[in-house]
Amino acid sequence: MTLPDHAAEYDPRGLPIKRVGITDLRYPVQVLDRTDGMQATVATMSLYVGLPHHFKGTHMSRFIEILNEVRGEFTFRTMPRILEQVRERLEADDAWVEMEFPYFLTKTAPVSGAKSLMEYVGTFKGHRDADGVDFTLGVTVPVKSLCPCSKSISDYGAHNQRSLVTVEIRSDEHVWLEDLIEAVEASASAPLYALLKREDEKFVTEQAYDNPKFVEDLVRDCVIAVRDLPGVRWIAVRAENQESIHNHSATAEIEWSRA
Amino acid sequence: MTLPDHAAEYDPRGLPIKRVGITDLRYPVQVLDRTDGMQATVATMSLYVGLPHHFKGTHMSRFIEILNEVRGEFTFRTMPRILEQVRERLEADDAWVEMEFPYFLTKTAPVSGAKSLMEYVGTFKGHRDADGVDFTLGVTVPVKSLCPCSKSISDYGAHNQRSLVTVEIRSDEHVWLEDLIEAVEASASAPLYALLKREDEKFVTEQAYDNPKFVEDLVRDCVIAVRDLPGVRWIAVRAENQESIHNHSATAEIEWSRA
Amino acid sequence: MTLPDHAAEYDPRGLPIKRVGITDLRYPVQVLDRTDGMQATVATMSLYVGLPHHFKGTHMSRFIEILNEVRGEFTFRTMPRILEQVRERLEADDAWVEMEFPYFLTKTAPVSGAKSLMEYVGTFKGHRDADGVDFTLGVTVPVKSLCPCSKSISDYGAHNQRSLVTVEIRSDEHVWLEDLIEAVEASASAPLYALLKREDEKFVTEQAYDNPKFVEDLVRDCVIAVRDLPGVRWIAVRAENQESIHNHSATAEIEWSRA
Amino acid sequence: MTLPDHAAEYDPRGLPIKRVGITDLRYPVQVLDRTDGMQATVATMSLYVGLPHHFKGTHMSRFIEILNEVRGEFTFRTMPRILEQVRERLEADDAWVEMEFPYFLTKTAPVSGAKSLMEYVGTFKGHRDADGVDFTLGVTVPVKSLCPCSKSISDYGAHNQRSLVTVEIRSDEHVWLEDLIEAVEASASAPLYALLKREDEKFVTEQAYDNPKFVEDLVRDCVIAVRDLPGVRWIAVRAENQESIHNHSATAEIEWSRA
Repeated sequence: MTLPDHAAEYDPRGLPIKRVGITDLRYPVQVLDRTDGMQATVATMSLYVGLPHHFKGTHMSRFIEILNEVRGEFTFRTMPRILEQVRERLEADDAWVEMEFPYFLTKTAPVSGAKSLMEYVGTFKGHRDADGVDFTLGVTVPVKSLCPCSKSISDYGAHNQRSLVTVEIRSDEHVWLEDLIEAVEASASAPLYALLKREDEKFVTEQAYDNPKFVEDLVRDCVIAVRDLPGVRWIAVRAENQESIHNHSATAEIEWSRA
Repeated sequence: MTLPDHAAEYDPRGLPIKRVGITDLRYPVQVLDRTDGMQATVATMSLYVGLPHHFKGTHMSRFIEILNEVRGEFTFRTMPRILEQVRERLEADDAWVEMEFPYFLTKTAPVSGAKSLMEYVGTFKGHRDADGVDFTLGVTVPVKSLCPCSKSISDYGAHNQRSLVTVEIRSDEHVWLEDLIEAVEASASAPLYALLKREDEKFVTEQAYDNPKFVEDLVRDCVIAVRDLPGVRWIAVRAENQESIHNHSATAEIEWSRA
Repeated sequence: MTLPDHAAEYDPRGLPIKRVGITDLRYPVQVLDRTDGMQATVATMSLYVGLPHHFKGTHMSRFIEILNEVRGEFTFRTMPRILEQVRERLEADDAWVEMEFPYFLTKTAPVSGAKSLMEYVGTFKGHRDADGVDFTLGVTVPVKSLCPCSKSISDYGAHNQRSLVTVEIRSDEHVWLEDLIEAVEASASAPLYALLKREDEKFVTEQAYDNPKFVEDLVRDCVIAVRDLPGVRWIAVRAENQESIHNHSATAEIEWSRA
Repeated sequence: MTLPDHAAEYDPRGLPIKRVGITDLRYPVQVLDRTDGMQATVATMSLYVGLPHHFKGTHMSRFIEILNEVRGEFTFRTMPRILEQVRERLEADDAWVEMEFPYFLTKTAPVSGAKSLMEYVGTFKGHRDADGVDFTLGVTVPVKSLCPCSKSISDYGAHNQRSLVTVEIRSDEHVWLEDLIEAVEASASAPLYALLKREDEKFVTEQAYDNPKFVEDLVRDCVIAVRDLPGVRWIAVRAENQESIHNHSATAEIEWSRA
């Protein structure tokens, strides 16, 4: 028995579809880890293709077939091949693969030297068309920000809070997630840790107080730190301060391109 | 034409269902407001009934019919009637109505006197069976907490953060959401505001520094403040400090009953 | 006492900030309702300004002051004035106001005529600069989609599911949220209702079976229905089928501009 | 220098704290896999202890130290030891460890035999006090449900949708997550797959139509299937049908204990 294939039919509406595919798919993946070679994690993925106006639909199951075959590595080396597979197997001009995943680093507390795992969220976004691949590497880094205004006007203390800083870059050379994370943490009032002993807590508290930052400072200092990484030619930063004196966030967005 | 009614059939499996109904329904409601009489907001609602083992199913559409009729007020006065309606119309022994909703208060900044709307989340949970009504009033209040340990061990500064404090009570008298909110805010290092001018920011920063609280202090001090409200006989408090030195929360839960 | 104003200081880093402001703020609002004139709801809001490279920061509290003053109406008529206020009070060239809010319509069940409130999510996005205002109206409409492939290849039945369709438009004339919602519902296999009696359930089941749609059909048919609304010159549609045979979504995105 | 330890101080308020600890912590873990021995995944964890009324606070950093030491296995064999460690290191009578994590099974499509990874969410909840350990194993399984009423009253078709079924058990013997998942999938109208070819889609469509289930049937049939697993003495099931004709869910909860 041959089952009909409606997706392959001609479509008369004359409307191309920008992208169509599968989204909200969770999948176990391996990503590059600067220290350990590879890190196993679980990604939330989207895969899309562009659909010319004359096709009625795409073949969604092929996305999953490709994922099953490449099960294992998602890296800057394999992404171009995966994107090319999507284009070929789904007979499309444009292919997109996007994923985000928890990513862990072992961090060392600043005084006690106690080690612990700290969680970040990495993102890969790849698009491939006839002209080549466009790849964006990103990471969300939770940091501490301490308000310069509050410090300056108060006789003692200063409000501070958790901030989420998301950086995305385009680069001509390989940049490690670890490099991005370190650049962001260096731009904040203080980094976060999963494990701090009392002597570390004293250190981090004073470090943040010595190093106040508005949300505007956070995004500008991130650009300055990240643009020195090798090959970086485009940066977008969004920082969201989960204000500890308000029930809303203070947020800033910046974009930078190498001239 | 008469369409068959499968829900009304006999069920042979011998298994009563604890509760069955509709959940994740958003609905515009009116709740009591101490200042303005009533406040219009949008609730997320669940309505359930218990189902004896011999019934195959319940009649879900009747929940919505009841909601449409009481469109308008959800208060400690109307809840018993709504619960009784659910029991009658769905021919059930047990009925539950649960809802949560954003709730706004006008707050006055402590120095400038500037006014702004601050958002809380209220909850009503009602259960009715043959013995009567059990009603729980709750609210989630975002506050500021400043760490006593960090303050004590550091030469200057102290880490502080947004905390979410959720209080639920059972009471023999009417308690306003406003009363609960004020009791929680008085138990924190400082309350939050939507609008603070610079002189207010100075005040709140110093107030929090003068008033450090562990998450354990937050929940204990909430119990002490809330149990003095009229008629309160049961309290549950959960406080979650969204730590500004960690990427996880410090959380405490306490329960108290009048002896 | 005069407290220092750091935000107003000169910034030497030479980096303009694309936009900075407050986000994740919940606020009670009034929006236009075609039937009742105005509808009270609760919005989640963001307000931003662009910040030239030479300014250190912006004055966040002024956003809230403006909100407090316009408390009440957010409509296509008031949005330009609110945006202009943001530009003036924060001394900025660019201002953005973005909001999303639950929005309710009374729907009539197709056979019984039973009435119930159905929930949608509306969005307003406004940007103002020296050249004028750019305003985008949007809505997310949950609908039913039934798979043409499943219907065609199966001896009986067809898988169907809830789909979320988000439409955004730019238009030269006023378009009601109600118009957008009706256009989307007419493009689906069937609309959703909060309340259906058995005779309605039969109707909707058969309507969906008679009217199968791929996710690709959903977005194309939305464009065709929406571009006939008065003055519409740009449309973006995203449809997400929460597949009932998979644990991921099938998603399509389309964009259309009047030539 | 010795830094003061406020947490260890005497508390005069006379209020014991039910539980206090860390929540919302993401952590890479290894859990048992029936096929492959162990499966690497990322858990969201909570660890708590009870705090007697005379202690001011607990020592939060010790939770992380324990996690770092057991980094690796979280299984029914290691959980009792981890709980005992928490009790000892935090000098507490009561200890809780709770975690949830994505968990993947390779599934075989019913006709084509195509293999794909399907995602579930597992949960472990352990509590230890002087009397021993109480352990609950749980899993959330997305399935397909097809409405018996809609099928019966309609001339053709029947509405169906994704349902989320969460089962938790207490058992005297080891039960695999895989056993629980299979029991739930057998109780639904049809299981879900990440990858279905057209012949599989036909099979699953017809299987669901042949096998209609109300949400009440789902939870009852789950109890019947799960109580036959070895050693099971307590079951709680919650099923949530994400209705494809409504914008809310139909939900049922059942609890069963061996007499």
